[in-house]
Amino acid sequence: MEFDLAAGIAVLERTPDTVRAMLAGLPAVWIDATEGPETWSPYVIVGHLIHGERTDWIPRARIILEQGPNRRFIPFDRFAQLRESQGKSLADLLDEFTTLRAENLATLKGWNLTDTELSLEGEHPELGPVTLDQLLAAWVAHDLGHIAQTARVMAKQYREAIGPWRAYLPIVDR
Amino acid sequence: MEFDLAAGIAVLERTPDTVRAMLAGLPAVWIDATEGPETWSPYVIVGHLIHGERTDWIPRARIILEQGPNRRFIPFDRFAQLRESQGKSLADLLDEFTTLRAENLATLKGWNLTDTELSLEGEHPELGPVTLDQLLAAWVAHDLGHIAQTARVMAKQYREAIGPWRAYLPIVDR
Repeated sequence: MEFDLAAGIAVLERTPDTVRAMLAGLPAVWIDATEGPETWSPYVIVGHLIHGERTDWIPRARIILEQGPNRRFIPFDRFAQLRESQGKSLADLLDEFTTLRAENLATLKGWNLTDTELSLEGEHPELGPVTLDQLLAAWVAHDLGHIAQTARVMAKQYREAIGPWRAYLPIVDR
Repeated sequence: MEFDLAAGIAVLERTPDTVRAMLAGLPAVWIDATEGPETWSPYVIVGHLIHGERTDWIPRARIILEQGPNRRFIPFDRFAQLRESQGKSLADLLDEFTTLRAENLATLKGWNLTDTELSLEGEHPELGPVTLDQLLAAWVAHDLGHIAQTARVMAKQYREAIGPWRAYLPIVDR
């Protein structure tokens, strides 16, 4: 499937409500659950999504659209949320993500991007040349990846509790 | 993590809203997307969750709680939704799932299950002896597995569209 701006935005605008529906009000045993040392809990994942709103997708799209002499993206800090979420409740983070995502989608829609603009290039610090439509498609797939990760982290907590059903529920071993 | 009835119910009662937040109103390119022949779209997955509400989790819990002479579960039809969803819109299915899940959780809460009851056994037609708490834990993990699957099916549609980001987004190849 090719990237389509309207279809992509349809997914992006649903992510805050999806994450909220999954997580808001859940007991801490779920919110703080991980897949082991150095892996992310649902709480950490929401902080990571927030950091992406602030520093990744729209800021990188701006670099591409400006087509300045230096189109190289600033490297993304995959661990920023470990600092930036400090002292914040999950409810705070969900509100912050909802607000930032709405602002970013308003920016994106306001650009009224043409096919020519969607094919403009920037430079990813590790992946090399990438187009604006690849960046926006990656934003969508990244959201979906973290929704799947959140569900998987939670499911794994019941790896033992499900007994023989482990054979039928591969998510607990993924 | 051991199965805890309240924590398990907290996940089960969020699933209808989570699936609705992800899918309601999305373009058909997402709702009907699959991972290839004989694999399930988000639309098919919601139908499968509905069939589970009708024939799997609570009906099997009843068989365990009754402790009759035959505690063997009726085999679950993994393809029933291909018939039963016919003619229904996704919006219909989401409403049906919401209603059935609410009824089933009201039933579950009304039982006020004791630890003794949670350790009673039934017989799975393929997996053999299973306890009630394993069945309920499997219900939770099953929900989470299908939420993750829904996100994965959608993400895979952008396997090519994300270009070089494919290296960083393993969900599109899972």
